[in-house]
Amino acid sequence: MIRISIDAMGGDFGPEVVMAGAAKALERHPDVSFLLYGLKAECEPWLARYPKLRERSVFHACELAVAMDEKPSAALRRGRYVSTMWRSIEAVKLGEADVVVSAGNTGALMAMSKFCLRTLASIERPAIAGIWPTLKGESIVLDIGATIGADSQQLLDFALMGGAMARALFEVDCPTVGLLNVGVEEVKGQEEVKEAGRLIREANLPHLSYHGFVEGDDIGRGTVDVVVTEGFTGNIALKTAEGTARQIATLLRESMSRTLLARIGYLLAKPAFDRLREKMDPNKVNGGVFLGLNGIVIKSHGSANAEGIAAAIAVGYDMARNDLNAKISQDLKIYHARRLPPAGPEAA
Amino acid sequence: MIRISIDAMGGDFGPEVVMAGAAKALERHPDVSFLLYGLKAECEPWLARYPKLRERSVFHACELAVAMDEKPSAALRRGRYVSTMWRSIEAVKLGEADVVVSAGNTGALMAMSKFCLRTLASIERPAIAGIWPTLKGESIVLDIGATIGADSQQLLDFALMGGAMARALFEVDCPTVGLLNVGVEEVKGQEEVKEAGRLIREANLPHLSYHGFVEGDDIGRGTVDVVVTEGFTGNIALKTAEGTARQIATLLRESMSRTLLARIGYLLAKPAFDRLREKMDPNKVNGGVFLGLNGIVIKSHGSANAEGIAAAIAVGYDMARNDLNAKISQDLKIYHARRLPPAGPEAA
Repeated sequence: MIRISIDAMGGDFGPEVVMAGAAKALERHPDVSFLLYGLKAECEPWLARYPKLRERSVFHACELAVAMDEKPSAALRRGRYVSTMWRSIEAVKLGEADVVVSAGNTGALMAMSKFCLRTLASIERPAIAGIWPTLKGESIVLDIGATIGADSQQLLDFALMGGAMARALFEVDCPTVGLLNVGVEEVKGQEEVKEAGRLIREANLPHLSYHGFVEGDDIGRGTVDVVVTEGFTGNIALKTAEGTARQIATLLRESMSRTLLARIGYLLAKPAFDRLREKMDPNKVNGGVFLGLNGIVIKSHGSANAEGIAAAIAVGYDMARNDLNAKISQDLKIYHARRLPPAGPEAA
Repeated sequence: MIRISIDAMGGDFGPEVVMAGAAKALERHPDVSFLLYGLKAECEPWLARYPKLRERSVFHACELAVAMDEKPSAALRRGRYVSTMWRSIEAVKLGEADVVVSAGNTGALMAMSKFCLRTLASIERPAIAGIWPTLKGESIVLDIGATIGADSQQLLDFALMGGAMARALFEVDCPTVGLLNVGVEEVKGQEEVKEAGRLIREANLPHLSYHGFVEGDDIGRGTVDVVVTEGFTGNIALKTAEGTARQIATLLRESMSRTLLARIGYLLAKPAFDRLREKMDPNKVNGGVFLGLNGIVIKSHGSANAEGIAAAIAVGYDMARNDLNAKISQDLKIYHARRLPPAGPEAA
């Protein structure tokens, strides 16, 4: 049984879509139970629509919900201990849930998660890992915006945590990991990135196959299972890719509606277009994973529909079932054990 | 008459494609003359194919060509004064050409351009500006990889130079300029970017309309005429967008060939697909502009075909005809005049 805690008030559409998504997720994963945190008046009518969900859930009425545009610091001040977001996270801390899923305000969710769950020992900064559709299937990209900048040690932490997530998500034993870099200069890349490459190579972790540097176009190509970068670059790469996909979709739509022949052709090829749309649908690949905390937190897109919420819950399900945090802790232990200096006169 | 200097040995395909591209460019811009720098034996047969090009060109036989994979420092040591790349740049320095176009090794071209032409007074670092197809037409993005990192003053220089390029390329009087940033954190973005925003706003330049921050998906949307960022992020954004476009094209091709109906639909809609392909064809929008040097240098994609070379030459033509560097110098002059401290006791 996987116990999933849900912030029912998160997202642009609130409980209507969150409940529908949870109901869908339950159909796909019958071994799930839910803890739902919401405002009573707004949630009950929607919950009543899904008797099976209701049966497998415990609903907790909360005092307030964090707004989508609220500043993280304000959300933390106002919503600590009492908001649907806080209490859904707290369920993980208290051991009542295995994972929490929220489509709420990203900044507030990260601030509350850090405050409530704290970072893992030796991890200085959590990262947000995104799942990116590629030509080969899916890859993990992190950090896509938890913090700006990262030193070489933090990039190594990201590699390690992203590798553990890949093992949990793709069920591979030794995922490939690449550091995002540029290839135009003689002395390639930022100092931190070069140093991180050296550290990862030296760490020689048993569950991580270090590929070396990758460039921006390697992400969509699926060159590696895990692409590591700091949050500024990662966020811009992610949004640029989303923007490009939208741009091409718009141009394609315009082209296909311009002449009668094109419209007929479009109708004939519609199943093919639908298949493509599905492959690139952000709702199908939804669920950013907060890595580096004492607990698993999944962030759904705020604009997700029920399918998107179900996808984010499915990511949470996989992370909990394959025990993401045990994998991270195991890798951290191996890494730090190897880093201990050899016993010698100085140690004596 | 616009005089264009060409490194005939640059690019993955060498003089065959470069000559074909120059011939195409001449058809489109009859007021162009060329200075061609190449290895005699390799160029003459191709040049002989284009009698009109031959008529409007002066061919300079050189001793050596820079290899596409040569390290910039090695290329500079070996190729200074004697290579086709160096001599084509030098023609601009000597006032014999208005602009130089090369499809050669980017790092070597930048190293030689800096060494030969030197940066403009007050410009510390040149930038490479790319032309990006958007939903609204085209935008300029810089720096796409000349250097890694930029402080706030350098970002301001990029904004100013990109603005001047937009005036020359789009023939608008007051282009909009945005700083690339992330939107997920409360305290948004890197310190340098925030500081650059303040500097650009305060500079209040007459030929630049400062829009504020833009995110990754604003690039493809065409939110602003000029997107400013440092070279690491810019290069990764560019390659990520190229990768995403290729990824979608591949998926679309696969989808369209999977069933008979889809194949028939594809054939009927082929002109529409062709129009889309043309819009996103990297050969149509080709030509990175090196900004901040005492002379105009255009870098074509190494993999460009004749159409791509012609497009890069067209960019060079526009930059020279609309006097890019005069516009940059004018803006720099206005900016620095305003920055002079007011006369006061300290100045006395």
